[in-house]
Amino acid sequence: MSVRVGIVGLGVMGRPMARNLLAAGFPLVASTRNRAVLDELAAEGAEPSASPREAAERSDVVITMLPSSEVVSQVVAGPGGVLEGAAAGSLVIDMSTTHPDVSRELARAAAERGVAMLDAPVSGGDVGAQQGTLSIMVGGEADDVERARPVFEALGTTITHVGPHGAGQIVKACNQIVVGVTYAAVGEALVLGSKAGVDPALILDVLSGGLAANRIMEVRRHNFLERTFPAGATVDLHHKDLTIALDVAGSAGVALPLSAAVQQMMRILRAHGQGGLDHSALVTVVEDWAAHEIGAPAPGAERS
Amino acid sequence: MSVRVGIVGLGVMGRPMARNLLAAGFPLVASTRNRAVLDELAAEGAEPSASPREAAERSDVVITMLPSSEVVSQVVAGPGGVLEGAAAGSLVIDMSTTHPDVSRELARAAAERGVAMLDAPVSGGDVGAQQGTLSIMVGGEADDVERARPVFEALGTTITHVGPHGAGQIVKACNQIVVGVTYAAVGEALVLGSKAGVDPALILDVLSGGLAANRIMEVRRHNFLERTFPAGATVDLHHKDLTIALDVAGSAGVALPLSAAVQQMMRILRAHGQGGLDHSALVTVVEDWAAHEIGAPAPGAERS
Repeated sequence: MSVRVGIVGLGVMGRPMARNLLAAGFPLVASTRNRAVLDELAAEGAEPSASPREAAERSDVVITMLPSSEVVSQVVAGPGGVLEGAAAGSLVIDMSTTHPDVSRELARAAAERGVAMLDAPVSGGDVGAQQGTLSIMVGGEADDVERARPVFEALGTTITHVGPHGAGQIVKACNQIVVGVTYAAVGEALVLGSKAGVDPALILDVLSGGLAANRIMEVRRHNFLERTFPAGATVDLHHKDLTIALDVAGSAGVALPLSAAVQQMMRILRAHGQGGLDHSALVTVVEDWAAHEIGAPAPGAERS
Repeated sequence: MSVRVGIVGLGVMGRPMARNLLAAGFPLVASTRNRAVLDELAAEGAEPSASPREAAERSDVVITMLPSSEVVSQVVAGPGGVLEGAAAGSLVIDMSTTHPDVSRELARAAAERGVAMLDAPVSGGDVGAQQGTLSIMVGGEADDVERARPVFEALGTTITHVGPHGAGQIVKACNQIVVGVTYAAVGEALVLGSKAGVDPALILDVLSGGLAANRIMEVRRHNFLERTFPAGATVDLHHKDLTIALDVAGSAGVALPLSAAVQQMMRILRAHGQGGLDHSALVTVVEDWAAHEIGAPAPGAERS
């Protein structure tokens, strides 16, 4: 008999993940405060449940996919939460991007009830969630990672056990640092180059052929050139992720000046009501500083 | 009859480029102040010449590959320089990383003598130069780019005409911004993650599977994990390149705070006598700020 999976949180990530779990044949119990989404998923074969506690009562493995550490804490350890319903021997997997201290604290609270816990944040965004190609970075006990593997394999293509409780969240913080700072780097290059008269499409072409190549110039090329930033992963969420990274860095005694600068740039976007845009909108902060939008082709430029 | 090529500057880049030109069958006239290198190349089939002027007198196309804008100016337009020897109708290609203002000024000086000029800086480093796989970004007239194409094809695999005189150098500046800032991003991620107890090799694995993926984590993996930084492209040269980028940005009214921070980080390395290391040594500045070297595997971490 297949493992029964519960999922709490059916947003831009959780919903396609739920669909992939159904497609893989897992009996699925769903929980969300959004009634319309719950009905929609029930029509596709999920069992609706009235609370995180109820979802946990009816599952062997419960996944949480929620927008902040505070919500994760509340949903897992708060009243009516997952740990009130989870049987001894069951497994809770938090796939949200959560502060690693919260991950460790929840793992301890779960252990007191005989419940195992993993932190398993993902990268790959909404597209990766839809296609089941997420990269999943997992912190916790090796036995539990093996137990969770069939579930992970329905959701992602790269599953890496990176260390004990909280380690998954540490690696996610590292990921968000590189992604965020790379956006700023590409923004500075494109604004300088296009203000100096060079076609930004040619800049992306040339840079992609050498040591400067990165996935962001490939995947977000259209956003940079058309200056359109549909989310995607939002500035608001990436700002939250960098806030976690900088807080972990503070506790660890690590100075991260570039990450801090990028977090502040995201705060500028939020101050202008643009937190809901895709995080690639970071390049518009560089544009704004230079009073120059990433431009039209320069006269005389030609590809060969 | 094959085009006669002259090359001035036979350093870590110029020497392997000269060998590739010989291998492609071009009659080659070489000029350098380093007598031993000149003798070595002569033994391989190049004709030695006594000065840049003499190299130009005996060539149809002259390449310069030199360490700074000042040296390029002197060698091209100074006494005993290329323009004194170049016949009307010949072509001078500066493949050094040069300030775009200098490129434009030299193109004007060349034009006064009926000599065409291209700025054609490269990315790909010493390995690209050896393997003939450089990415070449070319500024100048389209006709001259076509004329130079057989020569470029002996040296690189990606040849892109990016705009008028100076545009090649603008794109090279953009390239060095993205490369330099990416080193800092990877450094911040690896120092944070490893100080927080995660195996840095696992961090590189996971990040390479998602949106954070970049060529630098791939090509310089060994440098980061072993903390060994044999040049390669040096900190000194990259610092010079960022100084050009920031000067161009100043003239264009573009603010580049992250590039400026990275240029200052490179200056820290130079202050400590480490300007001769590979530019990937930038990560050691982040290490130094945190008093933590990118570390050994964390206990409990395991790949799956």
